[in-house]
Amino acid sequence: MTAVELIERKRDGGKLSNAEIGGLIKNYTSGSVNDYQMSAMLMAVYIHGLDRAELFAWTDAMLNSGDLLSLAAIAAPKIDKHSTGGVGDKVSIPLAPMVAACGIAVPMMSGRGLGHTGGTLDKLETIPGFTTNLDPDRFARILSDIGLVLGGQSETLVPADRKLYALRDATGTVSSIPLIASSIMSKKLAEDLDGLVLDVKVGEGAFMEDLNDAQKLTETLVDIGRAYELDVVALLTNMEEPLGREIGNANEIAESIAVLAGGGPDDLIEITYALGSEMLQLAGLAKDDEVARRALRTVVDSGAAMEKFAEVIEEQGGDPSVLEHPDRLPQAQFQEELPAPRSGYVTACDARKIGVAAMRLGAGRERNEDRIDPAVGLTILAKPGDQVEQGQPLARILYNDEARLSAVRPLLKEAFQIETIPVDRTPLILGEVRP
Amino acid sequence: MTAVELIERKRDGGKLSNAEIGGLIKNYTSGSVNDYQMSAMLMAVYIHGLDRAELFAWTDAMLNSGDLLSLAAIAAPKIDKHSTGGVGDKVSIPLAPMVAACGIAVPMMSGRGLGHTGGTLDKLETIPGFTTNLDPDRFARILSDIGLVLGGQSETLVPADRKLYALRDATGTVSSIPLIASSIMSKKLAEDLDGLVLDVKVGEGAFMEDLNDAQKLTETLVDIGRAYELDVVALLTNMEEPLGREIGNANEIAESIAVLAGGGPDDLIEITYALGSEMLQLAGLAKDDEVARRALRTVVDSGAAMEKFAEVIEEQGGDPSVLEHPDRLPQAQFQEELPAPRSGYVTACDARKIGVAAMRLGAGRERNEDRIDPAVGLTILAKPGDQVEQGQPLARILYNDEARLSAVRPLLKEAFQIETIPVDRTPLILGEVRP
Repeated sequence: MTAVELIERKRDGGKLSNAEIGGLIKNYTSGSVNDYQMSAMLMAVYIHGLDRAELFAWTDAMLNSGDLLSLAAIAAPKIDKHSTGGVGDKVSIPLAPMVAACGIAVPMMSGRGLGHTGGTLDKLETIPGFTTNLDPDRFARILSDIGLVLGGQSETLVPADRKLYALRDATGTVSSIPLIASSIMSKKLAEDLDGLVLDVKVGEGAFMEDLNDAQKLTETLVDIGRAYELDVVALLTNMEEPLGREIGNANEIAESIAVLAGGGPDDLIEITYALGSEMLQLAGLAKDDEVARRALRTVVDSGAAMEKFAEVIEEQGGDPSVLEHPDRLPQAQFQEELPAPRSGYVTACDARKIGVAAMRLGAGRERNEDRIDPAVGLTILAKPGDQVEQGQPLARILYNDEARLSAVRPLLKEAFQIETIPVDRTPLILGEVRP
Repeated sequence: MTAVELIERKRDGGKLSNAEIGGLIKNYTSGSVNDYQMSAMLMAVYIHGLDRAELFAWTDAMLNSGDLLSLAAIAAPKIDKHSTGGVGDKVSIPLAPMVAACGIAVPMMSGRGLGHTGGTLDKLETIPGFTTNLDPDRFARILSDIGLVLGGQSETLVPADRKLYALRDATGTVSSIPLIASSIMSKKLAEDLDGLVLDVKVGEGAFMEDLNDAQKLTETLVDIGRAYELDVVALLTNMEEPLGREIGNANEIAESIAVLAGGGPDDLIEITYALGSEMLQLAGLAKDDEVARRALRTVVDSGAAMEKFAEVIEEQGGDPSVLEHPDRLPQAQFQEELPAPRSGYVTACDARKIGVAAMRLGAGRERNEDRIDPAVGLTILAKPGDQVEQGQPLARILYNDEARLSAVRPLLKEAFQIETIPVDRTPLILGEVRP
C-alpha cells in the first residue's frame, strides 16, 4: 500500500489496519512520507475520525517511533500528572514536590507554551540556572536520587509526536480528539509510569471549550491507558477564567512558591490538592481522599515539600535561594494597573483573552520559534464573584515594552465584565473519569 | 486571515470568500503558503466540496495566477477541444487538422500521460524533430500563420495549476469535481477561446468511472464556461474499453494518420467526427450536424486535413514524411501476440488494465518524472462484440524489454473476457451537455 492509497481510503471514510498505521507513522518519522502527504491524512482523520482499533494502533505507532524510558530500577510508585493546558495553570510546579515529599517518584515531562496557554518548562526556566534539557540517563538518575525530576520531552522519546504536533499546528488539525489523545498518551506511555493523573481543562481558555467534547476526550485517554494496563484517573476542571492570580512565567513561579509555603489563591490550592490526592491514592500511599489531603498538608506545613523543590532546583542547576527570595526571579521594569470602569460585581474574566494578552506582552509564543520574556505577565486582582468600586484595580500589567502594553490594554479591558448583580460561580471541578 | 484560519473554516464545512480564495491561491503560487498547508486545505475541499461561488472564485484565482494568451488579432473563430483523458484517446491528433482545414483556428494545448492514461504531447513527440515546447509568442504566431498549433501548457500560463496538480496527485485529492473542474477550465479560459468542446470520458479507463459523477462534472464545466461567457459543449463518452486499436505513442500517431487518410477504426472515427461536428457548429461554420460532418468528410477526402497536419508538423520542427511513411516513426524491436484462451465472444477489454499494461511496457509514466519509450505499446486485435477462435490473437504486444513483457502478460490476460454468449455493446456517446 502506498501512502496515497492509505490517504484515499481514510478520505473516503474507510478503516486503516494496524500494520498500515504502523507503516505510515514509521515512514513519516523517517521522512519517506512527506509533510504534505501527512497533512492530507491528518485532515482526513480530523474529519472522519479514528475508530478504537485505529486509535490504539496510531498511539502504539507513535509510542514506538522512538526510545522508551526504563525506570524499572526505581522502587517507588512512578506517577505523573498531565494537564491539557490552560491559562495560569502552574499546578505541576507546587504539586510535583508535594507528592514527591509524600513518597511518589515523579518523572514529570512538561511542554512549552504555545498561543494563549503557558508551558511549565518556560516557567521553570525563569529560575536562574535551572535547566529542563535533560538526556534520558540524567533524567532517570535525578529521579532515582531524589524522587523527582522536572524535564522536557527528550528528542529521542516519541519523535513522531514532535513532527506531527508541529504539522498539526500549521494545518488546522489540532483539535481532533483521536489526534490529541494519541499525542498525550504516547508521550505518557513512553515514561514507564505506574499511574497517571490527568487534568483535562474545559472552557474558553482550554483547547476543549465544550464539556461534552472534553468528556469524550477524557474517556478516550482513560481507555487508551486501560489498553496498556496503566491506571489513569482524570479530572475535568474549569478553564473559563485563569487559574490563580498570576499569568506569565516568573510570577507564576512566585505564586507556586506561595502554595508550597502554605498560602496561595484558593482555586490553585483546590486543584493542586485534588490532583495530589488522586496521585497518592493511585500510588497506594493513601487509602482515601481524606488521608491523602492530610499527607499533602503535612508536607507543606513541615516544609518537606519546599525542601524537595529546593533539592530538584539544585539538582537541575538552578539557584534555590529564589524560594526564600522570590524577588531574585526576573522582574518586569514597569507596572500599570487596569482600573474598573464602574462599580459592581466581576462576572467574567475571560481566560482566553487574558492568555492572549499575556502572550502579546511577551510571556508566550505566537509561533513555536518565538522567544519569551520571562519577567512580563499579568496579576489578576479581581476575579469573578468579587465586588469592585469604580477605579479599583482589576489587574496589574507587568511589562518591559511600551508598544506591547498599548496593544494589550484594550484586550484586557474586554476580558473583564462587571455587572450590577453577581452571578453564581461555576464549580472548579466539573467531573471525573476513573479506570 | 491566516492560512490556518481558512483551513479550519473549510475543515468545519464553512465557506470561503472570493478574497480569501484569491489570497490563498496567490500565496500558494508564490510559496508563502506551504505545500503541507495546501494539502490539508485540498483534503478539506475534497471532503466538503466548494459551493458555486467558491468554485468560480477558485477557478478565477487559478486563471489569474499567471499570464493569459491574447489571440485577439486572429480573426478566425478560436475553438479548442479538451478530453478528460482515457486509454487510446488520440482523437486530438486527427481532429485538430480536420477542423483547422475547415477554417477554425485551433490553439490546442495538451498534456502528458500519467498513470494508465496517455498524453497527446508524448504521442506528438514521437514524430522525429517535432517540438511541443513553444513559448506564448511562437504559439500565437504559428496559430496566426497556419490556423493550428499543437503545444504544451506554457510555464507562465496558470502556474497555480501546475503546483496544485502535482500536490493533488501525491495526496489523494485528484478525483474531486470542483478541483478537476477548476483545473480544466482555468487552463482553457487562459487560452482566449471563442468556444470549447469537451470530451468527458466515463468508465473503467477514465478518471470518472460513474456516469452520475461524470454528468455532474460536465455540468460544472459548462457552468463555469457560462460564467465567463465561453460557449462550452460537452459529450460524455464511453471509456470502458480503449478507443481505437492502438495504445502507446508512435503507434497511436500511425492510427491517427490512418483516420486522416480516410481509414481507421470505427469507434475512433465516430468520436472524432462527433467532436469535430460540435466544433464547427460552435464556430458558426456549419448550421447543423449533417453539414458539419459533410465538411469534415470533404477535407479528409480531398487531402486538405492531411496537408494541414503536414504543415503543422513542419512549423513545429517535425518531419512530415512520416505521414506517407509511418514506418519512419519509432518501431519496437519485438512483438508477441496474446492468444485467445478459448473460443467465444469477447465481452470485455478493460481499458484500465490495458492502460496500466501499456504504462508498464514503458509507454506511460508511473510518476511524473518517468521517461517514456515512444515505440512500445499494444495493438488490440479483438474488441468487445468480436467472435474469436481459441488461439486467435487478442492483442499484439510491442516491446523492447523482455522483463517488462513478462510483467505485463498476466495483466493483459486479465483484461480480456471471453464468453459463450455475446453481450450488447454499450453506446459510445453516453450523453451531452450544452450551454
